[in-house]
Amino acid sequence: MYGAGDVRIGDVPDAHLIEPTDALVRVTRAAVCGSDLWPYKTMEHSESGRRMGHEFIGVVEAVGADVQTVKAGDLVVSPFLWSDGTCVLCREGLQSECLHGGRYGFDDVDGGQGEAVRVPQADGTLVVLPAGADDLLMPSLLTLSDVMGTGHHAAVVADVGPGKTVAVVGDGAVGLCGVIAAKRLGAERIILLGSNPDRIALGTEFGATDVVSERGDEAVERVRELTDGLGAHSVLECVGLEQSTLTALHIARPGGAVGRVGLPQEDAVPDAIATFFKNVTIGGGPAPVRAYIEELLPDVLDGRIEPGRVFDRITNLDGVPDGYRAMNEREAIKVLIEF
Amino acid sequence: MYGAGDVRIGDVPDAHLIEPTDALVRVTRAAVCGSDLWPYKTMEHSESGRRMGHEFIGVVEAVGADVQTVKAGDLVVSPFLWSDGTCVLCREGLQSECLHGGRYGFDDVDGGQGEAVRVPQADGTLVVLPAGADDLLMPSLLTLSDVMGTGHHAAVVADVGPGKTVAVVGDGAVGLCGVIAAKRLGAERIILLGSNPDRIALGTEFGATDVVSERGDEAVERVRELTDGLGAHSVLECVGLEQSTLTALHIARPGGAVGRVGLPQEDAVPDAIATFFKNVTIGGGPAPVRAYIEELLPDVLDGRIEPGRVFDRITNLDGVPDGYRAMNEREAIKVLIEF
Repeated sequence: MYGAGDVRIGDVPDAHLIEPTDALVRVTRAAVCGSDLWPYKTMEHSESGRRMGHEFIGVVEAVGADVQTVKAGDLVVSPFLWSDGTCVLCREGLQSECLHGGRYGFDDVDGGQGEAVRVPQADGTLVVLPAGADDLLMPSLLTLSDVMGTGHHAAVVADVGPGKTVAVVGDGAVGLCGVIAAKRLGAERIILLGSNPDRIALGTEFGATDVVSERGDEAVERVRELTDGLGAHSVLECVGLEQSTLTALHIARPGGAVGRVGLPQEDAVPDAIATFFKNVTIGGGPAPVRAYIEELLPDVLDGRIEPGRVFDRITNLDGVPDGYRAMNEREAIKVLIEF
Repeated sequence: MYGAGDVRIGDVPDAHLIEPTDALVRVTRAAVCGSDLWPYKTMEHSESGRRMGHEFIGVVEAVGADVQTVKAGDLVVSPFLWSDGTCVLCREGLQSECLHGGRYGFDDVDGGQGEAVRVPQADGTLVVLPAGADDLLMPSLLTLSDVMGTGHHAAVVADVGPGKTVAVVGDGAVGLCGVIAAKRLGAERIILLGSNPDRIALGTEFGATDVVSERGDEAVERVRELTDGLGAHSVLECVGLEQSTLTALHIARPGGAVGRVGLPQEDAVPDAIATFFKNVTIGGGPAPVRAYIEELLPDVLDGRIEPGRVFDRITNLDGVPDGYRAMNEREAIKVLIEF
């Protein structure tokens, strides 16, 4: 990406092993992330450009001398962040805060929207998939790299559980995965806040029991009507804008919890006093997807959850720039890239 | 209170039963709360004045026809809010959010810093104390009306538990009770942030293992040094100012939790982006003291905790205005009023 709206396919030096803890992965599937749209909307022009992509599945081509858990030929999925798996935070299941981890596309690490990636800390990062590279489950398996784990994180932080009423703010791919996660964790009622007919239809198939298409104060009013005036026990904030955050806080029930996974676009959480007087908890952040893959993978393999249905467009590498455009214009929910 | 700095003792109509769910309580002990200092600093002049006080112990003089759990002659403690005990939120243990509850000193309900109080929803609100009115434990029992339960709430929301490192921001009465609560819940290490020598000394007796007297960035740096650069698992924000909130957020470890019980003076939680990237949870609000009295009372009665030591000045009703002054000038930690 060379600036807002300017995504190009180019030749870069071949990915190759550098550290003994690296794996070299030939990418077979990748995705465009909703978070990729923030720079797509706002990035200043850069001569050198920025490598993009952090959701991918691929085949291991080679591993460094210290790598023990993956080997050449393995089909692997990578979380959207790499992590060593051994630091105190990784051991607590918070791999997204790894003390020695990092992001794809920065500091000599390739982006995931490319043919090959050097994966640092391969043992801590990669998970071998018990599936063939062309398995029909591939789209759902790919969501384990980010969106499904991120929706799950919002649900976990918002303390979703059996019998609870859950509200999901945002009908993007993460919000839709949040609906799946809420249903999977036993929510009794799932209110999806969104207005796009196709996305709402998919959300309903995923388990949303109610849809609120209003926005702002009207949306808040509508959720309150649906919840005996109280609001939802658990709110999943899957957008990141100030307005969506306000809505999330306003529709939380007293004593409820908001799990925010939408990348925050403002540096303050609004409405702190009302939130205090309601005893509402606000949590969330980058999902420790690595921890969640093991929990979610069996459900994907058994077909109990189908998060791959959020992909409504498939392209090849050359089609990636148009994929960004389509997602940015809300023509597509999420774009899958096949190599 | 007739305005900032203007507290007067006056005659008001005698408290009396109005509703069949009321109890009439003759106050034997009351307290000045740190939250009373906010209007003491800022309240605009009012001709009619405002009744003050919400922490008290007293003897029941009479009860309405529907009251079943307290009777004339009982010694009772009241939480700082009254609550019906039967609504859906009370039943969940969140009496501070009672759908039919309210505050002392407003809407025909007397303030607690007076000789008698009409207590609405007496069954839901009052707890009978198995003690005599002049028991030596009276100061500690009085803290169950607010500060001890509030410090405990901060600790519960901040997920304090065995083996954890806890930081307490603020060396006021609530912060000191937060230290007691953290120790009681098994914290391995308790870092108290405060600078008043007497308060720090008391905090250390209560269980603080480390003291940080610096402020702002220096305090953050110091806590990080004490915690292998990571910060505290649990942070108790017991002040409510923007600076103290920022400090609390900055000293929280990735994946940690901040329990805020200081009355927030700003309507935004600062530093939302960094907090997001650290996966720090922010919760708290008015403590459901009613729920906590039953949990904490045995420890007070057995002398296992001594929160009453936060009272370092005793006065009578006439001395209340000077008590406000002394607390506001940080001459006294907390003032107990004997009737």
